[in-house]
Amino acid sequence: MRTIDWVDDHIELIDQTKLPGELVIRKVTTLDDLIDDIQRLAVRGAPALGVAGAMGVALIAQGNPDRATLESEAQRLANARPTAVNLSWGVKKTMEKADGGFPALLEEALKIRDDDIASCYSMGQYGADLMDELLDTDTYRIMTICNTGGLACVERGTALGVIQTLFERGKLEEALPVETRPLLQGARLTAWELTNMGAPFRLICDSAGPFLLSRGAAQAVFIGADRIAANGDSANKIGSFSLSLGAKAAGIPFIVVAPESTIDYSTATGADIPIEDRGSEEVANFHGVRTAPEGTQAINPAFDVTPTSNITAIVTDRRVIRVDRGETPQTTPLGEIRAK
Amino acid sequence: MRTIDWVDDHIELIDQTKLPGELVIRKVTTLDDLIDDIQRLAVRGAPALGVAGAMGVALIAQGNPDRATLESEAQRLANARPTAVNLSWGVKKTMEKADGGFPALLEEALKIRDDDIASCYSMGQYGADLMDELLDTDTYRIMTICNTGGLACVERGTALGVIQTLFERGKLEEALPVETRPLLQGARLTAWELTNMGAPFRLICDSAGPFLLSRGAAQAVFIGADRIAANGDSANKIGSFSLSLGAKAAGIPFIVVAPESTIDYSTATGADIPIEDRGSEEVANFHGVRTAPEGTQAINPAFDVTPTSNITAIVTDRRVIRVDRGETPQTTPLGEIRAK
Repeated sequence: MRTIDWVDDHIELIDQTKLPGELVIRKVTTLDDLIDDIQRLAVRGAPALGVAGAMGVALIAQGNPDRATLESEAQRLANARPTAVNLSWGVKKTMEKADGGFPALLEEALKIRDDDIASCYSMGQYGADLMDELLDTDTYRIMTICNTGGLACVERGTALGVIQTLFERGKLEEALPVETRPLLQGARLTAWELTNMGAPFRLICDSAGPFLLSRGAAQAVFIGADRIAANGDSANKIGSFSLSLGAKAAGIPFIVVAPESTIDYSTATGADIPIEDRGSEEVANFHGVRTAPEGTQAINPAFDVTPTSNITAIVTDRRVIRVDRGETPQTTPLGEIRAK
Repeated sequence: MRTIDWVDDHIELIDQTKLPGELVIRKVTTLDDLIDDIQRLAVRGAPALGVAGAMGVALIAQGNPDRATLESEAQRLANARPTAVNLSWGVKKTMEKADGGFPALLEEALKIRDDDIASCYSMGQYGADLMDELLDTDTYRIMTICNTGGLACVERGTALGVIQTLFERGKLEEALPVETRPLLQGARLTAWELTNMGAPFRLICDSAGPFLLSRGAAQAVFIGADRIAANGDSANKIGSFSLSLGAKAAGIPFIVVAPESTIDYSTATGADIPIEDRGSEEVANFHGVRTAPEGTQAINPAFDVTPTSNITAIVTDRRVIRVDRGETPQTTPLGEIRAK
């Protein structure tokens, strides 16, 4: 099953707002519907949004608009979530083929989709092999945060993709996703993906992660990344830093998994990564239920930054950067995309 | 306002299940009602349960039962929450005065209430003075977890009592309670108490605590304790350990506040403290809303243990134990209960 795909003459995507209760596949035949689905987070996750942007351009082009309309509609799509860099990246990259009309645009969109799938398989191979290199046990217990699975990409995930590869290799003893407040992507989405895989897992509250690490519950932590600075400092879902402290205190590996495109060489260190605050309401409410007194203000950073001093390695689709040995994205040579 | 008190011929208590939405004062005139209120957590928090046990004995004795009935009813009260040590402690301590009948029993119950109030005032003084000793700033930003306020005691709290004293001294710049999953005592109860005090605060997700500490959001962390081992290792609400790692990484004080009665000299270290697991449902649900797929199992430790290596000081009603200087509960002499 794919999170988003092109089927016949339209886009199909899993409506993630309905998970984990219901699996609803949306058929998207108009740009307005696609923009609506993006805005209400029916499709989310950086790589999946890139593909949504690419396929959205194909959807526009299919109606045979004139060039000016194609460009203005593509721009409207790119602006659907202005802070989502991958969305506008997918739109722009596809639009480079605009001269070729609909066939060329669809071909490019499908290539972006296929590249994502290949990239995630490759990260799974690099990451699973790294576990074998780091640890001398037959099976692994892995803690993770947020949703970095197929639902954030097309078919397989980044950090959760490594866990899936370990599971397929018969090496996953247990996955331990943290629920990931405030939006619960761990409980709602990662637990759903692990259930579908048939992989053994137990859910935990975010605050229990570091303590359970101290008691030996997991042998490694794998997380995704929203942006990796040139020195290796990694921004990811709020709570990642906390787990990195727990892993360090427990003396176990803490591994960041993300495609090469996540590395931002123009950002020197984590101190230069801006942290978005998403406002009070997500914290003072939970799934639509008010949890704190009226008028309660909150600090609600969506991301945090884990410094290289807490990171063992960064796994991409083309290499393993051994941060614990002083390697950085700038010093480690690129390797090949690895096949299944 | 008191969380629990004796008024005329009955017990009055704040129904904490209704907070933060409504402030409902329950008049409790029968033992059955009191037991029901204890079991459904209308009254909770170790010190408050001790007072509930004591006043419950007075309530029974007021009906002029024979000695055998008094004793069996007292035992029924003590068993209302078998794992709550303070409840049975309050019952037993009061029952020592059973020979004196209702007047003596009520007198003892009121003394237990007054001792709790005095003890919390004293912790507030010791704790606030310690802040002045540790830091050279005019006002303080303090992070805390769970509810350790008046709602867990009678009138004032332990860790939140110190924050209240700082506020009364004009020295509280901001309190930063974490919401405290899974049961949200921070969001529901601590935010409510701070709102009532008029104290400045912002609520945060548990997972944001350590990261915000790394960015200088707070100058110290104050927590309560459910049990303190003889060496100073402290068991408290799950998430405390995580904050202790954050405080250590940020180089700021991490301070445990609890009455002397919390120190368990028969427990050598934190490794000997059993950790209760409260089952999957609290984690897979939130305020009655299902958050994870059906069948999801969870690990749900109610408490964690912070080792002395992460603790700056333990503040009790009778002393400050400077753990960071190698002091332990066994080596530090007792001082006086300090008045307001």
